[in-house]
Amino acid sequence: MLVRKRDGRLEEFSKDKIAGTLIRAGLSREKAEAVAEEVERKIYDGIETEKVLQIALEIVGKYSKRVSAVYGLKSSLLRLGPAGYRFEKFVSSLLREFGYRTVTNQLIEGKCALHEIDVIAEKDERFLVECKFHNTPIYTGLKEVLYSYARFVDITESGKEFDGMWIFTNTKFSSEAVKYANCRGLLLTGWRYPEKGGIEFMLESKKLYPITVLSLKDFEIELLLKEGFAFCKDLLSKPNKVREIIGKRAEILLEEARMVQEGT
Amino acid sequence: MLVRKRDGRLEEFSKDKIAGTLIRAGLSREKAEAVAEEVERKIYDGIETEKVLQIALEIVGKYSKRVSAVYGLKSSLLRLGPAGYRFEKFVSSLLREFGYRTVTNQLIEGKCALHEIDVIAEKDERFLVECKFHNTPIYTGLKEVLYSYARFVDITESGKEFDGMWIFTNTKFSSEAVKYANCRGLLLTGWRYPEKGGIEFMLESKKLYPITVLSLKDFEIELLLKEGFAFCKDLLSKPNKVREIIGKRAEILLEEARMVQEGT
Repeated sequence: MLVRKRDGRLEEFSKDKIAGTLIRAGLSREKAEAVAEEVERKIYDGIETEKVLQIALEIVGKYSKRVSAVYGLKSSLLRLGPAGYRFEKFVSSLLREFGYRTVTNQLIEGKCALHEIDVIAEKDERFLVECKFHNTPIYTGLKEVLYSYARFVDITESGKEFDGMWIFTNTKFSSEAVKYANCRGLLLTGWRYPEKGGIEFMLESKKLYPITVLSLKDFEIELLLKEGFAFCKDLLSKPNKVREIIGKRAEILLEEARMVQEGT
Repeated sequence: MLVRKRDGRLEEFSKDKIAGTLIRAGLSREKAEAVAEEVERKIYDGIETEKVLQIALEIVGKYSKRVSAVYGLKSSLLRLGPAGYRFEKFVSSLLREFGYRTVTNQLIEGKCALHEIDVIAEKDERFLVECKFHNTPIYTGLKEVLYSYARFVDITESGKEFDGMWIFTNTKFSSEAVKYANCRGLLLTGWRYPEKGGIEFMLESKKLYPITVLSLKDFEIELLLKEGFAFCKDLLSKPNKVREIIGKRAEILLEEARMVQEGT
């Protein structure tokens, strides 16, 4: 059975690959193999990879809400759009969970220009944080990393004290972007980068499930992020506030959040 | 009579403004005023600026092919898309007309990354040229200028000798981009920038009319640029080559090019 990848190339469908992904997301080997078999029965020749993942996700949902959420993490990060500012709020919340004090959307005068800085994060060190959001899983490339570096140089040359520039993206970095950033001392955090500290690793290590893993409508995401709700656990800690914001659908969402957070 | 500008604001229609533009484009004062009056008779309240310009352009066409071409210069530059590489070819041809030796699309190893350089231009000095194309008249902003500077730094730090970075755009630069570029010593050339040396000034000073002022189909623009035809005068200097590339429609285009080049 052939599967069509995003770049158009065809590839043999692999039950092992699907099962492996599910095991990494926390499903037992037995269940993972059962899901993979069920997926195989439902696909057809020439089906797109994305459609395969969607089918797998539906089947997984029957086994475990938690695994389904982890499995859906990547696409949940793509829902932090359409514009970038939702992602800025999200990154700011994520950094707070790791003990940083943060402020968003600051204007800072550099030596040669005025810069809009997405987030400033401070713990032992003080970082300029640039948030690069993409609503499709394309790479964050060299240009983004180049201008972030030029920004950092311009701001520090004006005498303002920052210890580093930190670039967050919800997708992957291109290899050229990684090479340049390492050479210039920029910190990068993206999908599966760095290997043991990517954005998915940061989230999973603290059981932070983005609210976008839930069956939220777009305007609900908007309202919740605006009020500082970034993760499922935030909803569970302030259920009354959620009821106030969302109205009737709040109970369904709270139940979904509970299942994701506690596993079922 | 109110005219709606691109940013949505309303503005009183001004016959003098239209006439002024036409005089700058080479029409006599008498004709310019006649055109402006004819425009006034044809517009209506709330009409978009673009539509006004289009009406003016149609009327001007009756008076002078040359002025019509100059007047249509701005939109002809927007037709050098859809992708940016056509604009790179165009900038390269423009620089050659000003005595530069040019090569396009070079890969240059910097200190920290490999850079794709649109054009390298050399006369007395040697420039890295970054071409920034937009297919709508939006500003070229700070980010583009920041990453161009970071590129220049990375390449010169690797020991390669360039005297400067030169950024070309077919639209305008934002004021923040201009401020930064001046402070960092980057050269900028765009629409009406610098005031006495913008891209429209460079073109008009040597009677260079982009082939996109002609009634070309998109694939014809493609074919001609690929063969090194950037300006109307290029078509007139190699008519047989044009006939070979374009086929039947060549005579019409050559006649159009002649009218634009020589005025009628």
